[in-house]
Amino acid sequence: MLQKELYLKTSGFLRAKEDYEKSKAVIVGVPMDFTVSFRPGTRMGPRKIREVSYGLEDYSPYLDESLNNKNYFDAGDLDLPFGNVEKSLKIIEKSAENILEDNKIPVFLGGEHLISFPLIKKVAEKYPELAVLHFDAHADLRDEFFGEKFSHATVLRRACEHLKDKRLYQFGIRSGIKEEFEYIKQHGFLSFAEVKEGFMNKFDEFKNYPLYITLDIDVFDPSYAPGTGTPEPGGCTSKDFFDLIPYFKKLNIVGFDIVEVSPINDLSERTSLLAAKILREVLLCIC
Amino acid sequence: MLQKELYLKTSGFLRAKEDYEKSKAVIVGVPMDFTVSFRPGTRMGPRKIREVSYGLEDYSPYLDESLNNKNYFDAGDLDLPFGNVEKSLKIIEKSAENILEDNKIPVFLGGEHLISFPLIKKVAEKYPELAVLHFDAHADLRDEFFGEKFSHATVLRRACEHLKDKRLYQFGIRSGIKEEFEYIKQHGFLSFAEVKEGFMNKFDEFKNYPLYITLDIDVFDPSYAPGTGTPEPGGCTSKDFFDLIPYFKKLNIVGFDIVEVSPINDLSERTSLLAAKILREVLLCIC
Amino acid sequence: MLQKELYLKTSGFLRAKEDYEKSKAVIVGVPMDFTVSFRPGTRMGPRKIREVSYGLEDYSPYLDESLNNKNYFDAGDLDLPFGNVEKSLKIIEKSAENILEDNKIPVFLGGEHLISFPLIKKVAEKYPELAVLHFDAHADLRDEFFGEKFSHATVLRRACEHLKDKRLYQFGIRSGIKEEFEYIKQHGFLSFAEVKEGFMNKFDEFKNYPLYITLDIDVFDPSYAPGTGTPEPGGCTSKDFFDLIPYFKKLNIVGFDIVEVSPINDLSERTSLLAAKILREVLLCIC
Amino acid sequence: MLQKELYLKTSGFLRAKEDYEKSKAVIVGVPMDFTVSFRPGTRMGPRKIREVSYGLEDYSPYLDESLNNKNYFDAGDLDLPFGNVEKSLKIIEKSAENILEDNKIPVFLGGEHLISFPLIKKVAEKYPELAVLHFDAHADLRDEFFGEKFSHATVLRRACEHLKDKRLYQFGIRSGIKEEFEYIKQHGFLSFAEVKEGFMNKFDEFKNYPLYITLDIDVFDPSYAPGTGTPEPGGCTSKDFFDLIPYFKKLNIVGFDIVEVSPINDLSERTSLLAAKILREVLLCIC
Amino acid sequence: MLQKELYLKTSGFLRAKEDYEKSKAVIVGVPMDFTVSFRPGTRMGPRKIREVSYGLEDYSPYLDESLNNKNYFDAGDLDLPFGNVEKSLKIIEKSAENILEDNKIPVFLGGEHLISFPLIKKVAEKYPELAVLHFDAHADLRDEFFGEKFSHATVLRRACEHLKDKRLYQFGIRSGIKEEFEYIKQHGFLSFAEVKEGFMNKFDEFKNYPLYITLDIDVFDPSYAPGTGTPEPGGCTSKDFFDLIPYFKKLNIVGFDIVEVSPINDLSERTSLLAAKILREVLLCIC
Amino acid sequence: MLQKELYLKTSGFLRAKEDYEKSKAVIVGVPMDFTVSFRPGTRMGPRKIREVSYGLEDYSPYLDESLNNKNYFDAGDLDLPFGNVEKSLKIIEKSAENILEDNKIPVFLGGEHLISFPLIKKVAEKYPELAVLHFDAHADLRDEFFGEKFSHATVLRRACEHLKDKRLYQFGIRSGIKEEFEYIKQHGFLSFAEVKEGFMNKFDEFKNYPLYITLDIDVFDPSYAPGTGTPEPGGCTSKDFFDLIPYFKKLNIVGFDIVEVSPINDLSERTSLLAAKILREVLLCIC
Repeated sequence: MLQKELYLKTSGFLRAKEDYEKSKAVIVGVPMDFTVSFRPGTRMGPRKIREVSYGLEDYSPYLDESLNNKNYFDAGDLDLPFGNVEKSLKIIEKSAENILEDNKIPVFLGGEHLISFPLIKKVAEKYPELAVLHFDAHADLRDEFFGEKFSHATVLRRACEHLKDKRLYQFGIRSGIKEEFEYIKQHGFLSFAEVKEGFMNKFDEFKNYPLYITLDIDVFDPSYAPGTGTPEPGGCTSKDFFDLIPYFKKLNIVGFDIVEVSPINDLSERTSLLAAKILREVLLCIC
Repeated sequence: MLQKELYLKTSGFLRAKEDYEKSKAVIVGVPMDFTVSFRPGTRMGPRKIREVSYGLEDYSPYLDESLNNKNYFDAGDLDLPFGNVEKSLKIIEKSAENILEDNKIPVFLGGEHLISFPLIKKVAEKYPELAVLHFDAHADLRDEFFGEKFSHATVLRRACEHLKDKRLYQFGIRSGIKEEFEYIKQHGFLSFAEVKEGFMNKFDEFKNYPLYITLDIDVFDPSYAPGTGTPEPGGCTSKDFFDLIPYFKKLNIVGFDIVEVSPINDLSERTSLLAAKILREVLLCIC
Repeated sequence: MLQKELYLKTSGFLRAKEDYEKSKAVIVGVPMDFTVSFRPGTRMGPRKIREVSYGLEDYSPYLDESLNNKNYFDAGDLDLPFGNVEKSLKIIEKSAENILEDNKIPVFLGGEHLISFPLIKKVAEKYPELAVLHFDAHADLRDEFFGEKFSHATVLRRACEHLKDKRLYQFGIRSGIKEEFEYIKQHGFLSFAEVKEGFMNKFDEFKNYPLYITLDIDVFDPSYAPGTGTPEPGGCTSKDFFDLIPYFKKLNIVGFDIVEVSPINDLSERTSLLAAKILREVLLCIC
Repeated sequence: MLQKELYLKTSGFLRAKEDYEKSKAVIVGVPMDFTVSFRPGTRMGPRKIREVSYGLEDYSPYLDESLNNKNYFDAGDLDLPFGNVEKSLKIIEKSAENILEDNKIPVFLGGEHLISFPLIKKVAEKYPELAVLHFDAHADLRDEFFGEKFSHATVLRRACEHLKDKRLYQFGIRSGIKEEFEYIKQHGFLSFAEVKEGFMNKFDEFKNYPLYITLDIDVFDPSYAPGTGTPEPGGCTSKDFFDLIPYFKKLNIVGFDIVEVSPINDLSERTSLLAAKILREVLLCIC
Repeated sequence: MLQKELYLKTSGFLRAKEDYEKSKAVIVGVPMDFTVSFRPGTRMGPRKIREVSYGLEDYSPYLDESLNNKNYFDAGDLDLPFGNVEKSLKIIEKSAENILEDNKIPVFLGGEHLISFPLIKKVAEKYPELAVLHFDAHADLRDEFFGEKFSHATVLRRACEHLKDKRLYQFGIRSGIKEEFEYIKQHGFLSFAEVKEGFMNKFDEFKNYPLYITLDIDVFDPSYAPGTGTPEPGGCTSKDFFDLIPYFKKLNIVGFDIVEVSPINDLSERTSLLAAKILREVLLCIC
Repeated sequence: MLQKELYLKTSGFLRAKEDYEKSKAVIVGVPMDFTVSFRPGTRMGPRKIREVSYGLEDYSPYLDESLNNKNYFDAGDLDLPFGNVEKSLKIIEKSAENILEDNKIPVFLGGEHLISFPLIKKVAEKYPELAVLHFDAHADLRDEFFGEKFSHATVLRRACEHLKDKRLYQFGIRSGIKEEFEYIKQHGFLSFAEVKEGFMNKFDEFKNYPLYITLDIDVFDPSYAPGTGTPEPGGCTSKDFFDLIPYFKKLNIVGFDIVEVSPINDLSERTSLLAAKILREVLLCIC
């Protein structure tokens, strides 16, 4: 059951229904950016994504479906103790646990990438065959960062430790330290610099698993997503990604997050709009 | 005595001539954005487009021609009664009428998309065989919007009612409500998500009509044109468009507008620059 | 009774209670800026004021009271037909009527200044002895503006026509056309350039009336409130205004609005914060 | 035929007349910022000041007069060879010479402060009894700057060499190097940190001279004028300055400039608006 | 001795000497903002303050002295483990300890206000008679914040526990929760809303103690310091503060910090410039 | 030998070594933008490129090498006399001379494009077989600009005069005046609108020469590099360029510059990041 005291009230994504019971997907905002090294500011991400969603239609020409007829619930933002990483991760975990127990699909909005760790951990407990699709510019596979085990730069390394056969598929990776690229080779999982090619290449392999998708908005080139903490030139275009949407529809998505949207660095709000439009498509795929 | 040669004229697009009589094209700014739903601000568009035009050369390598030798006139901005949609549309219509009576080609700078309605109406009266090329992210084909018949979201629907055989060609459309996409199918006119493919595909068909071209700057991906009211991720690149310029040269363009440039949302001014560069090319095509 | 269908859901101001019945004050956002002549953008005002209110404490050291213990209700934003001034004013009027019938105090967030007209009209119907305190840089007393009777530049002129003995007190006025200053003299009502002096000067006179307070944020110098449509240098400081708060506590406030907050022109968000802090104090005065 | 009354002229300060002959004051923009050391950008100043002037009324409540009835001419911006200081100063000088020969009053908009040198030089030639009122945060009295004799940091030192009895009055000065403050003492001219006090203090002394007024916008505190190249905290308020306006009316102003407005550093445009409003008042004083 | 491995290289403040041995004051940047609740971004503060210092003269007209002749050392920024509050506080403490052991005066640049805790603790150990002058908009006297004992909102409460007789003097306080204002009354220490009055009032009392001065930039009104995390309208002006500088010269300052400068929220850079100018004056007072 | 007095101290690029002797490449910042015609501001480029370099990893997945192990030295910014073009060019020349005499490779960060002239001149003196690869949107081949021989718009024309057989290869050129395109044809050197195609096309020809590479950041489309003085729509993507990096590795690069990065026009900092990432790759190619 949803523990109301965990959440702060916000406006809802697009025209989210107020009926938790009937909803298949539950949106949760996670305003956390304590471990970020370069530019903080992602804690304003979830509110901004909701705000700009009012500029979108609810109909998707990519899927020829309208969100109007779908049931999804927006629970608001988690109420986190600022500066306390450990307690914050526990609250996120608790929130995910509630949603999974109610047999609903968690859809989380970051905040920094570290928030994906407790989510993947909880989803993997429920779905032992889980694979993770990871869209990102950075490998996020360090073993530690500034001496810390839990950080936005180590999050997929930690998540891997909870995945059967280290079922991780990475798309868009174009930055990291040598250690991370060696880790990738050693453990034989897959990391592609090109988003579209990589995805289509392995589609037949991962389509059979229950899937958790984590999307760091910096997978896009900074021209498409300037509002993020560690923009990395040389990324994919928005069209490259939208071309994949019909394939998303065929997947068994059991968890999803979009992270690292930092509104302050993007006066044009197009980063948040891009996140909001992707969220619309994903909700149409899972509801 | 004042030596005129010491001074730059502080306005006018590029180095517009002051000779109305000899000019073939007449530029008019329309600072109107009253019916906009998401982000107002396009009323500053016409001034900004002129201002940044000083950063452009007058020579086009795409057409190997220089605007220097061409005659076009910049009439300035229309003086509109703010908040009064009906009267404003009448003033726009009057302005277009004057220009058409003098056998000149109207080139209007928005402002919001609704300004295209009185223009297309007047041009269609003069050229009964008129077809419209519509570059946009949004179909703008609703029958009404918030109960209003005349709005930026209904403008092409209204315009269609004045076009023989509903001769509308849409390029770049990637957003709308279900009703609009159904209207497209019912009436058998053409709407393409891809700009370049769509344009080349139907070139032989529309090239024989007198043409009105209306270009909503949001046809471009928000990375290319962040300064607009309702940016829609997933659009075309600036190169996609400039590749079409040599084909524009072969068309019989009898009216043109660029709309929805909103300078406030683009500190880099590249949206206005893109509009100004397109305007240079179009003036070279029609003068 | 509150007609729910008039409103869009938003996050609430500070930690507004969800109990309409018990609330004495009702907050309503009015995202309207169609008649604005210089810089539009105030339609984003109400949402931003609520958003930044999370950076404020609920305790006021000026009044030694906490909003925590007070009952006020945030109804959300009115759902307006963009571009249609007439219908929009009717919806605002309807909303005010509902609130007044329920014997609650309307507290409206603009939006442009024109929204004050239907509010003052409705409040004056209920309280025939009503006087209006008007904080503004501009007199807003034109008879018409660009040929329009209803505009942000004529709003107080129109409102005066509904006030017994033209009971209007203006503070901070430092801009207008000659006609407006002559109107002031002819009708013998009071207009002060200095906010604090003017207010204290006439306090004993107006304190006995039921009062509607309308505050255009541009009464403050643009250094204190840069985020507004027609900033006018030479205004008062924030401290000048907060010094008046203890006197507000002694007044019989029966209606209130803050208008012309335009977030896009203020990256620092201090204009919205100033509005939010004033709103906190006013809510403490009336609840 | 084109109906001229439909259009607004897109440039010119406020509604400047097009009649050079009848005009007493001539406005000239000088887009030069080559010698600036900290933040360039003032070359966009003159255009922006004109642009925002459309947000001002032409009536001044400070002087109870309207610019509507006055004759002044806006010549546009000087066409300068970028990067060539020497030639640029000659062009400025030429422009001033023309205006003075026609017995008109030069009113120049910077650009950087160095532009005042050729102006003061030419005005002093015509009026040998000339005194200069200098509003600024910086003394600008270095003998050289980075080895250069002509720079924004040496401009008043150079100007002094053309003034009888070194008739320089400085107001608002709160920054400089030791050498400059010693130069002030040695030559016995007057420099005040406080604008209002200093001005009133010496009013009876300077009011009898023909006066050139040079106003560096950074005389205001950066909160009032953030859009400038070398903002210096601790300056005067806009009100402090407007209180002096009635006294300006009594002076014999024979030349005027406002310099160092840098629009790029001020998204709110209030620096340009402040400059435009001061310009309105000064034009009312001299026309 | 300075442990070099603790620091990252940066450009130095103004023209800081490279001679640690001879320097009396040691500048250290602390890029930490993990516990901030509203708007993060202060971690970029120290670098920006140094960057804009190049726009300042080294001569102070307030004190008639030049920083040129003074010895102070800029050690660079501390290299902190992002997201780990506990370890970060230890590193700050270590850095302060080194500097104090070498009989130098620590001058720290934040970062968030929590960094003052380890500094005050260490300075109080060395100077048992220490009093703290606290310039701030917020009391920062909560006992805990979101369940945390160590936070920017509790920092002075924690610091008090290390001060003999709770020798805390607060100036500019205009925000807090009821509990904090009651704590102030109970413990009989002094908190003033007005900066200048409060300071002058108690000057004779605190001037005899060794003093630690902690200045949260939000003590200034947001118009003077928009670039900060929790701006609070109604604060003091920059002039109010600079008027105190000659009195600072008479104090026995044994430690100093400026905190909460957040460059991202201030495009004009005036907040950083204000901090840099204050730092110049304080260095002149202690060197 | 490096003349220390020429340079101002800055933070270093990425983690530049402090060992000049062992370094093969020497980075120098050139904060000059005096001859720029449209938007100045590039003088802040070098500092910003260094600042954002902290957001990059030192490992390159494109070359599978880490900058960690390489020796390069960052000398800081040249201390230039603002406004004096001639002296500034001499200082740049002197700096290049020193570096070349020490048999190191000059790597300069602009500043405006004119800085490339003294660099190419000096490098061509040392390597008489030198060819220049020129990445830019503009041909920069005018003979004069506003009457000046030395300007950002004439720089490659001047440079050509020092190159044997006018060995100039231009990539990305999409703007210029007719004269420039005719000069290209007359002198038979090569200019391509497409970056990637052009480069690959002529690779076998130029790979045998010692090469100077000059990269004007506006070669990229303004969506990828909005922070520049004269953005020109229709340019290449960042990916187009990074695809060439492995080919760079095979070249004999003897001099390099990146110019025209103007941080003020790019709040997202992605232009500086793109420059920094290219610099990382080039350093890996030459060290």
